[in-house]
Amino acid sequence: MTRKVAIDHEVPAGVALPEPPPPLEPIEPARGRTPAEEARTLVASASAGSLATLSDDGFPWSSLVTYGSLADGSPVLMLSRLAEHGRNLDRDPRASLMIAEPGVEREPLAHGRVTLVGAASRPQGELEREARDAHLAAVPTAAAYSGFGDFSVWVLRIERVRWVGGYGRMDSTDAESFAAADPDPTARSAAAAIAHLNDDHPEALLAISRGLAGYPDATAASASRIDRYGLELAIETPRGRAPARVAFSDPANQASELRRATVDLTRRARERLGEASR
Amino acid sequence: MTRKVAIDHEVPAGVALPEPPPPLEPIEPARGRTPAEEARTLVASASAGSLATLSDDGFPWSSLVTYGSLADGSPVLMLSRLAEHGRNLDRDPRASLMIAEPGVEREPLAHGRVTLVGAASRPQGELEREARDAHLAAVPTAAAYSGFGDFSVWVLRIERVRWVGGYGRMDSTDAESFAAADPDPTARSAAAAIAHLNDDHPEALLAISRGLAGYPDATAASASRIDRYGLELAIETPRGRAPARVAFSDPANQASELRRATVDLTRRARERLGEASR
Repeated sequence: MTRKVAIDHEVPAGVALPEPPPPLEPIEPARGRTPAEEARTLVASASAGSLATLSDDGFPWSSLVTYGSLADGSPVLMLSRLAEHGRNLDRDPRASLMIAEPGVEREPLAHGRVTLVGAASRPQGELEREARDAHLAAVPTAAAYSGFGDFSVWVLRIERVRWVGGYGRMDSTDAESFAAADPDPTARSAAAAIAHLNDDHPEALLAISRGLAGYPDATAASASRIDRYGLELAIETPRGRAPARVAFSDPANQASELRRATVDLTRRARERLGEASR
Repeated sequence: MTRKVAIDHEVPAGVALPEPPPPLEPIEPARGRTPAEEARTLVASASAGSLATLSDDGFPWSSLVTYGSLADGSPVLMLSRLAEHGRNLDRDPRASLMIAEPGVEREPLAHGRVTLVGAASRPQGELEREARDAHLAAVPTAAAYSGFGDFSVWVLRIERVRWVGGYGRMDSTDAESFAAADPDPTARSAAAAIAHLNDDHPEALLAISRGLAGYPDATAASASRIDRYGLELAIETPRGRAPARVAFSDPANQASELRRATVDLTRRARERLGEASR
C-alpha cells in the first residue's frame, strides 16, 4: 500500500527543488498508516468539519458542521432544516465533508485533511437512535437543540475518500478500505510524545538516526511525527537536513505503547552502533 | 440594520427555553456591526477556509484552501490544477468559501463563520499581479509554489453572503454591502481587551452593568465580546444571568481606541450611578 504519492508539479526551468541528502546505509522499508487509516484517524481526531452541499441556485454551499461517527467511520450530522445545508440535503443528498487536523494555527496546508464524499440520508428507527447517540457523544452541546423539531440526524454514506497529509503527501481510498480501517489509537498522544522525545531524549533520537535511519553522519535529530507504526525524524548532517522514517518492531496498539516502542528503537539503534564500532 | 435574527426553532411542547431576566431600566439601543461588517471582519481575521466546488461526478467537493483578499474583500486563491478543486473550477466556476473564526477549539457552532458564494475567475494582466500579491501577503509560504506552472490565481467574485455569529445570531447580506463594508479594525485586539477587562476591571464592568445596561440589581458582570461599536456583558443578578450590550459614545477606529472607549463607558456609568444615588 503506497503512502506517499509524488505530484508532478510544473516546476519552471532553472528552479531547483530542495533535494535532501540520501541515506548512506541501506534501511528497512518503514510501513506507515494507509490512506484509509490516515482518513479514519483524522475523522476520529475532530468533531467539526466543513460540509459541501448543493444549493437550489446550483452553487456548492460550504458550511460549518459538527459531527460524530458510526463504528464504520460514517459521519453523523445534526442539521436544522431552517439552515441552508439542511434544506440542501432535503433536496439533494450529495455532499462532502472536509475534516482538517484540529489545533493547527500556522501553515494549514502542511497538515492533514480529508474529504469524504457520499450521499447523506436520514436514518430511521434503531439506526436513528444509534446515530443520534454517536452525534451526542462527540458533540455533547447538541443536547440543547437535538430535540427541536427542525433538527434531524443525517448519516453521510461514504463513497470515496481523498486524504492529504501535507505538501506532497496524499492519496485516495475507497469506501470499503475506509470502513475497514481503524483510527490510529496513538494519535491523541502523538504531539506530547514528540515534545517529550525532543525535549528529553535528543541523544536517543541521534542514536536512532545513526543506527537505524541510514545516517551514520547525523549530528543532531528531532522527532517530527509519530504514529502507531513508527517515528519520523528530521536529521541534520554535514550534507544537509534529511527526513527519515523508522518503523517500530511491533505497532503500538494504544497510546501507552509509544513509550515501549521508542525505548525499543533506541535499544536496537545502540546495539547496532555498538556492533558497528567493534 | 438588524444584527440579530430570531430563528423559529420547533421547540417541543413542555420544553422551556432559558429566558434571561429583562433590564429594569430603559436602555439606549446599541448599534452593532452590520452583517457585512461581520463578514468582512471574519474574512480579514483568517487566511484559510473551506472551499466548495463542483466535481465532475456532480457531487459538491469540500477542500481546505488558503486565501488573501483584494481591497473589496474578494478572496484570492492559489490552486493547482493537479488538485480536484483546481480542476473543478476550470470546468465550473461556481464556488463558495466558508471562513470560520480562527483559534476556536471548543464549541465551534457558538462562534462566527461566513459563507461567501460566487463565481471564481482567473484574473489577467495587472489584476493577476495584484491578486497574486494579495495572496502572497496573506500566505507567505505560497511563495514556495506560486511559480509552479500548475498553480493559478483565482478571484472569487462574491454574489451573496451568509454570516452566522453563533447560536441565534445570523443574517445575510449582498455583494454591494460586503464590498463597501470595512473589517472591524479592533478585532485582532478584542480577545486581549476582554481578558484585560475581566482580569483587572471587574468593578468597572459592574458599574457599566448597573449604570448603562439597565441592570441596577447586577451583582457581578463579565465582558463577553467587544467590537468597535460597543461592549457585551454577561450580567449576574438575583433574577438570573442576562446578556447585555452597551454602545460606545464614538466607535473605535483602531485597536488602541478600545481603551479610551471602555474608560469612557466606565466614567459615564459612574456619573449616572452618582446621579441616581443623590
